[in-house]
Amino acid sequence: MLDNFFNPKSIAVIGASRTPGKVGYDILKNTIQYGYQGAVYPINPGASEILGVKTYPSILDVPGKIDLAVVVVPSKNVMEVIEQCGAKKIDSAIIITAGFKESGIEGAKLENDLVKKAKEAGVRFIGPNCLGVIDTHSGINASFAAGMPAKGSIGFFSQSGALCLAVLDRALPEDIGFSKFISMGNKADISDTDIMLALSEDDNTKVILGYIEGVNDGRRFMEVASQVSKKKPLIILKSGITSSGAKAASSHTGALAGREAAFDSAFKQSGVIRAHTIGELFNYAIAFANQPLPNGPNVAIVTNSGGPGILAADACDKSDLQLVLLHKETTDELRTFLPPVASFYNPIDIMGDAGAERYEKALYTVLQDEKIQGVMVLLTPTAVVDVEATAKAVVNIANLVDKPILTSFMGKKSVESGSKILMKYNIPNYSYPEEAVSALNAMYRYHVWINRPEKTYPHFDGLKDKVTQIFEEVKEENRERLSESEVHEVLNTYGFRQPKSLIARTSEEAVAASKGIGYPVVMKIISPQIIHKSDIGGVRINLNKKKDVENAFFDITTHVKNIMPTANIYGVMIQEMIPGGKEVIVGITKDAQFGHMIMFGLGGIYVEVLKDISFRITPLSQEDAHEMIRETKTFPLLRGVRGEAETDIEAIEKSLLILSQLALDFPQIIEADINPLLVKKRGEGVVAIDARFTIGGD
Amino acid sequence: MLDNFFNPKSIAVIGASRTPGKVGYDILKNTIQYGYQGAVYPINPGASEILGVKTYPSILDVPGKIDLAVVVVPSKNVMEVIEQCGAKKIDSAIIITAGFKESGIEGAKLENDLVKKAKEAGVRFIGPNCLGVIDTHSGINASFAAGMPAKGSIGFFSQSGALCLAVLDRALPEDIGFSKFISMGNKADISDTDIMLALSEDDNTKVILGYIEGVNDGRRFMEVASQVSKKKPLIILKSGITSSGAKAASSHTGALAGREAAFDSAFKQSGVIRAHTIGELFNYAIAFANQPLPNGPNVAIVTNSGGPGILAADACDKSDLQLVLLHKETTDELRTFLPPVASFYNPIDIMGDAGAERYEKALYTVLQDEKIQGVMVLLTPTAVVDVEATAKAVVNIANLVDKPILTSFMGKKSVESGSKILMKYNIPNYSYPEEAVSALNAMYRYHVWINRPEKTYPHFDGLKDKVTQIFEEVKEENRERLSESEVHEVLNTYGFRQPKSLIARTSEEAVAASKGIGYPVVMKIISPQIIHKSDIGGVRINLNKKKDVENAFFDITTHVKNIMPTANIYGVMIQEMIPGGKEVIVGITKDAQFGHMIMFGLGGIYVEVLKDISFRITPLSQEDAHEMIRETKTFPLLRGVRGEAETDIEAIEKSLLILSQLALDFPQIIEADINPLLVKKRGEGVVAIDARFTIGGD
Repeated sequence: MLDNFFNPKSIAVIGASRTPGKVGYDILKNTIQYGYQGAVYPINPGASEILGVKTYPSILDVPGKIDLAVVVVPSKNVMEVIEQCGAKKIDSAIIITAGFKESGIEGAKLENDLVKKAKEAGVRFIGPNCLGVIDTHSGINASFAAGMPAKGSIGFFSQSGALCLAVLDRALPEDIGFSKFISMGNKADISDTDIMLALSEDDNTKVILGYIEGVNDGRRFMEVASQVSKKKPLIILKSGITSSGAKAASSHTGALAGREAAFDSAFKQSGVIRAHTIGELFNYAIAFANQPLPNGPNVAIVTNSGGPGILAADACDKSDLQLVLLHKETTDELRTFLPPVASFYNPIDIMGDAGAERYEKALYTVLQDEKIQGVMVLLTPTAVVDVEATAKAVVNIANLVDKPILTSFMGKKSVESGSKILMKYNIPNYSYPEEAVSALNAMYRYHVWINRPEKTYPHFDGLKDKVTQIFEEVKEENRERLSESEVHEVLNTYGFRQPKSLIARTSEEAVAASKGIGYPVVMKIISPQIIHKSDIGGVRINLNKKKDVENAFFDITTHVKNIMPTANIYGVMIQEMIPGGKEVIVGITKDAQFGHMIMFGLGGIYVEVLKDISFRITPLSQEDAHEMIRETKTFPLLRGVRGEAETDIEAIEKSLLILSQLALDFPQIIEADINPLLVKKRGEGVVAIDARFTIGGD
Repeated sequence: MLDNFFNPKSIAVIGASRTPGKVGYDILKNTIQYGYQGAVYPINPGASEILGVKTYPSILDVPGKIDLAVVVVPSKNVMEVIEQCGAKKIDSAIIITAGFKESGIEGAKLENDLVKKAKEAGVRFIGPNCLGVIDTHSGINASFAAGMPAKGSIGFFSQSGALCLAVLDRALPEDIGFSKFISMGNKADISDTDIMLALSEDDNTKVILGYIEGVNDGRRFMEVASQVSKKKPLIILKSGITSSGAKAASSHTGALAGREAAFDSAFKQSGVIRAHTIGELFNYAIAFANQPLPNGPNVAIVTNSGGPGILAADACDKSDLQLVLLHKETTDELRTFLPPVASFYNPIDIMGDAGAERYEKALYTVLQDEKIQGVMVLLTPTAVVDVEATAKAVVNIANLVDKPILTSFMGKKSVESGSKILMKYNIPNYSYPEEAVSALNAMYRYHVWINRPEKTYPHFDGLKDKVTQIFEEVKEENRERLSESEVHEVLNTYGFRQPKSLIARTSEEAVAASKGIGYPVVMKIISPQIIHKSDIGGVRINLNKKKDVENAFFDITTHVKNIMPTANIYGVMIQEMIPGGKEVIVGITKDAQFGHMIMFGLGGIYVEVLKDISFRITPLSQEDAHEMIRETKTFPLLRGVRGEAETDIEAIEKSLLILSQLALDFPQIIEADINPLLVKKRGEGVVAIDARFTIGGD
């Protein structure tokens, strides 16, 4: 995929310049100086050769075939160049030129035209407003970055050219190998998902690393990410997650930052490993690129000093990793060569006077323990330790086993040479033990992800027809909100149990209805203008006799008329009062980028005060429904505390799955919630007490 | 304070060695090679000179006065050396030697003896089992660390010698200046608090940095830390906060790791700036050492690239810092020289083609804005930016203003020279923007700390006598738990309102009591063996008439007799039923190191399921009481949600303060809680519904 971008047989640099320091000069120089074997054609009408390479006035003058066009001309000339690309049958272009969407309204218009023009011309392009593309394996550097990273297995794509530069600059002195660097710029044509797919199919890429500020098509992103993450670790740093960040992002490349909750769900559901800082992005990348995944959470720490061992143990406890006790045989073996004052528990403290040999033997012994699925080696630069010899010892042992080994040789001056050896031989080394723990934890979580069973997506068929009709009526009447009875009908059709209810327009009808339903009853005002009924005194509960119902009818109607004189009052709903149960909220919301999301939370104050809500993007799998209930903090309340009976959690799961089906069936749903959904004892199901639906165009 | 440790006129190295690589050699070498001007006396009975310095068989043979003894002899000889120190009137010693408490039971015994011996001999000592002490200003390096840090203003003390080495090694190549390095080892004599006091009085020390695994005397630690933190920033990394970490810590130097909640409260209450990782410790130190504090939370970000700006904005939003809009005048001024596509909002993106001059003008302009109280400058190594010139520009501007400036020149290779310039001229530079934000946020929080008004500690006098008598009786009876009526008496004496109540031993008495108190009533079993009354069916509420009371009496007593046949049933408490209100829990617990703590949380499931509890160590200030209620997540429930009335939060505050007084009055309290404390509407106070007290020896 995208072969002509990464492995072209010939490149034209359109806008090549003779002036060092100009982007058109830097790019041309980069394309020829790093061992690229194909033909390079500088295009510049005013020059006959640049940097010793024959120059052409236009691509149309180039005699041979051109696989890739790198465009550095001013923005006003880009359109013409793309047209020429079409004429010359060039199907791939990198548009470096800035001055498009990121520069304002005029630029956005230009970008739209560009997209159209490129489509007509049959040209796919990366950019505009990007740094370019690097492929270390084919030796291509079609970018204006300074330097070429070492060959390696990390494929990096970034919405920010600056981050490309920073990562590249950081990688150079440490010789960290990359397969590809792709600066995506404004992503007007080729998107994150195209790049992710290309990298997942690229044999030279083992780990995919990305920085994004937003995505264009959330659904497609999830689809591709799910696919890719099963094959290779996909590590992404997403910025713009807070309001200041989002504001900054939208003024940056015009990216739609998107709601944090939606991204969080999308990443979770599609197996994206999320980095939260640039440091984490980097730390994770070198771990995944260089070490095998752990087969489980059980790790050991080997250290020559207590303090860092304790800090690492603290970090493990806050992660999913487990510091387990070693087998007795392992401890016995360690005792044969470690000093008696050493610590034989985990962390294993081999003491400050440990040399390389002791490190080697201890590490080897610990790795033989079948309980141990990964090891972190910590070193502080004591006077006696030979840092280089210890690094070599770690490398030797690592070659013998298929378990991940990460190191933290702490300090800087004394450990630099050791760190170089470690990194050269694929042992990721970190400045601080906490970073090693965090990276190994990410690897363990990825191990869990790729080994989880396929998700199952239940379907609920044949429910759609009647609701289609209701939604059409609502639309015809130019309404957005469904009436009480419409909501009732929709929920009923989709199999939600609801309290018995009747509508009464007079006090007498209310009494009759109550009698029919059976006391106690609940009464609620019905008016299309009133959404939050209880906030304005439109709800009465636990009414036990005729007199109560009569009084309530009078109170509710006069009260509402006083407060909202313009509201149309259709009547009062008389509802069966359902005893017992716990209140939860389930619902559907719509995100601008990811579409429908299903929401879950414990009712009332838990949602309002504690914001203890979970989300998943539709379609919901059985596993999503299971997890999203359990990830709320208040989940134990559903399990039952203080000897209470467990509630019907399975019935909530099913409700969430049905809502997902409903959302799939009706794209026009803007918002819906069942609040409260009353959850009864295990086996007794749920009852939708009240609900709201808002629909729009589809 | 501790002058002879840091500024001695003469040093004896007892156990000096001729063999390079031995600790006794390294220390001697360190004492003479870094410009120390005083006399150095190597002590070694088998040598006449080492490293060109005349050697003595024993300190008693040294002709002159000795201010400081550095002890490197084997552990079995340390006792004799300390005795000689006494004889020679040496009052200060650093005991490097290991093999004490950290090595097991035998070592612990030896350490106890050492403490006793030193006291007799009039010798104060640092260690044992430590790395030694460095003072860059007096040129003393009485340690076996490799290298001497640059002169500077950071004073570092550490319970882990390894961490000293790692920090030193990291500081050396970056030329980060330290005033003192103190490796405390086992802290058998001189403790954290002694060191903190000494550093706070040391004119060369501007910032105090510490690593601890535990403290010996929590109370004293808080007292000293509160005092010190008002004078100088006190930044501490505390490890052993999780169960694995604590286990590792206790097997390390035998430090009592202590409960995380207690340390967290102690740090909060005494103004300690808490670092959570080694990286943070370092990052905070260089910020505080080099830049003035911000006068408020309003910061600006100046960047040459969007992505890093967005990441920094995200980090600001998660901190206490505020990314405010600039004054219109500032924006107008920026427009005069920035390109039109630049972003004039905050973060201020001066674009990828920015050179040093544009950085200088933009930074200067932004700093002139009086709204802005601190600035972060971000740089990515673009082709056009001159990193060194930009670093110099930042330094120039920084000299003109008294606002903090932190930088993140991202990358490594291209920015290294710039970073060197920045660090040299006191601009802390960070690898990633998130680190700069975190450091500036710590500075802002410290600004808030030192500017907060003095805390007020209310006293409640004259309540003690009656309770003293009760506690004495309980002790005489060898009980730990107070009976229902004793609890009632204690709470009554300390002014807690309680429901009216009477004790009934028969059904008839129960009915009479209910009549006297007035229906509805609550009934509760009274038995010294039963603590959680409701868990075993020992509580009935909302009893409205005679028949109910009779039935309840029968039910409760037979039920309890069936479940706990051995329990002594004293009778049943008949209690006034208090309508309305919200339930909270307040209580006293005792921490092994910090003593009494006051606890607060919303009652029932909030505490049990959500663990939403806050703590403060006694004595509680008015401010502590105010804050601890507000820092729980469920606090909004007390304020009232959905139009509920606000509860009497002031009355809760007073309850917490009274409990603090009670804890101060009675050290023998092991645990006490009022659960629930019913909080009524604002102005209507609180009622202690139920409570438990456990006391022990004092």
